[in-house]
Amino acid sequence: MNINKQIMIVGFGKVGREVVHQIKELKLPVVFTGLVDSSACLLSHSLSDTQIESVLRLKKTGSSLADLAESKPLSFMTDYYNKDTIILDTSAARNLDWSLALQKGCQLVFANKNALSAPWEQASVLYHKPGIRYESTVGAGLPVIASLRSQVTSGDQITHIEGVMSGTLGYLCSQLEDGVSYSQAIKQAFEVGYTEPDPRDDLSGFDVLRKALILARTAGWSLEESGFSVEPLYDERLVGMPVSEFFNLTSLLDETYAQRVEEAAQQGRVLRYLATITPQGGKIGLQAVERTSQLGALQGPGNYFAIYSQRYNQIPLVIAGPGAGIEVTANGVLNDIIALLS
Amino acid sequence: MNINKQIMIVGFGKVGREVVHQIKELKLPVVFTGLVDSSACLLSHSLSDTQIESVLRLKKTGSSLADLAESKPLSFMTDYYNKDTIILDTSAARNLDWSLALQKGCQLVFANKNALSAPWEQASVLYHKPGIRYESTVGAGLPVIASLRSQVTSGDQITHIEGVMSGTLGYLCSQLEDGVSYSQAIKQAFEVGYTEPDPRDDLSGFDVLRKALILARTAGWSLEESGFSVEPLYDERLVGMPVSEFFNLTSLLDETYAQRVEEAAQQGRVLRYLATITPQGGKIGLQAVERTSQLGALQGPGNYFAIYSQRYNQIPLVIAGPGAGIEVTANGVLNDIIALLS
Repeated sequence: MNINKQIMIVGFGKVGREVVHQIKELKLPVVFTGLVDSSACLLSHSLSDTQIESVLRLKKTGSSLADLAESKPLSFMTDYYNKDTIILDTSAARNLDWSLALQKGCQLVFANKNALSAPWEQASVLYHKPGIRYESTVGAGLPVIASLRSQVTSGDQITHIEGVMSGTLGYLCSQLEDGVSYSQAIKQAFEVGYTEPDPRDDLSGFDVLRKALILARTAGWSLEESGFSVEPLYDERLVGMPVSEFFNLTSLLDETYAQRVEEAAQQGRVLRYLATITPQGGKIGLQAVERTSQLGALQGPGNYFAIYSQRYNQIPLVIAGPGAGIEVTANGVLNDIIALLS
Repeated sequence: MNINKQIMIVGFGKVGREVVHQIKELKLPVVFTGLVDSSACLLSHSLSDTQIESVLRLKKTGSSLADLAESKPLSFMTDYYNKDTIILDTSAARNLDWSLALQKGCQLVFANKNALSAPWEQASVLYHKPGIRYESTVGAGLPVIASLRSQVTSGDQITHIEGVMSGTLGYLCSQLEDGVSYSQAIKQAFEVGYTEPDPRDDLSGFDVLRKALILARTAGWSLEESGFSVEPLYDERLVGMPVSEFFNLTSLLDETYAQRVEEAAQQGRVLRYLATITPQGGKIGLQAVERTSQLGALQGPGNYFAIYSQRYNQIPLVIAGPGAGIEVTANGVLNDIIALLS
């Protein structure tokens, strides 16, 4: 363990706060040099526990760092970039530019999918580098990225990847299977906190697409979004209105999905929102899979990843488990930090 | 990567030879300083490709290192122990003593389960050390040990582990489920090379016990063999005779197992040879599990590990896939070496 590592955290949502908590609890040999949100940053060669606690409290109330007297404009953040710095991006920010951080030798840990799923021309610099890790972008804390990286590093040739990568849509599929209507299932998923504030952000399949893109690129395939076909789980009649109105219209699709569930059931199958990724591109959408298969046995919000390769050609390497949740997502970040420290 | 690492390989069965092959293919920055079998060793500050090739050829023909003019008695091996040495134990030897190697600062990679499953008093020195790895002892190349170690290192508290850890017995369960008789299923497993030369070595459950012990200890529980109850898949009528005679007697149990399969089927269940491990001890034996569960969906020689913990309490972290095979087992060893090099 290197005892001089410095941590900067960008983003103070629930995951960011839980990461700080887990780092403190484990007593990792690091100092915090920067706490950053979209408004400002708090910087020091070693932020005190009191400073960190006060920022955590502040952020929990919804305030921003700019409200702190001691905070600095974001442009000062780069002063603290150096080769002993690990930057954690747990934000949801788009268009953050990490090129200076990389030039200065910083290591990076992403929970934020945006930079990694940007067009390959920008994103390529973030892949296949030991100092850049992003376990929690796919499957939360499940060791999917670590395993895939190990396979690639040890000379295995990945042939294709199959996965159920959305806890939200997994829950939806399970509910539909249990006879709950499409509109009711979405309402329930929203109420238990499984969906984004606008459920269409999940139903669009876009989040799955970004995860699939990250997996593909980790496997060594420099795909773009355009290389995937994506089936959204709503249609044009549910586009363009506010969320409250959307909820009133979801019953328009109740019959469509009930019918698809029924058709699958008649063949002993169940629907899963599946991503299939090959070196040439990917396909994301509902698929009817055997009820008695591993995929069919998947229940509720569980994620499932099957990696097929030269070495795992008959039976794939499967990693499954919860693909969402604050604690496990933060744990994915923590494991990345520990890997960089050792 | 440290370019001065020195590799000593103990054991030249199929796995050991495949490891050498994969190291060469990946061009890992290492030199080979020792090739060791049970008869003698070949040592040098840097063994040439020609020397290595000739040993591989020799071992493939069933000869031993003592037949080589340039080989030395085993006692010379320790001369090459130093802090830049990684020793790979891919042998099946019992009672190898690694204390001097550890004193001299060697790192160790085990494919051999014996030292790790010895009584805790001897084995404890091998656990919870970053420089000692043993991925391929459980689940071949599947990242079970790496994941479990990450969980423990990052402060997660493992509560219990459930697993199907024998490809051989998994195959047997699948065959029984398909209506094949016990005696036929064992004969087939033997013929396709899934069993040990004496199938009772698999049927005894002892190999599963050793894997369960290694998992338990990795989870932080210093259990002993005596902490497990093990149900062997044969009875006293099949004990004590040579293998050929054993095969003639297996049909004595055809009805017993057909009946158990039938009883399970009547409840929508299938039999799996399951190990359940808790901090207090473990249970290994046939269990009837729901046909439509993840465990029920498992087919043939596939392995399955479900880790339940403080963080993975509702849905476990599952790792599944082939738990045997020369190439994937060697790959587990290779991943351990790469982890030690980086």
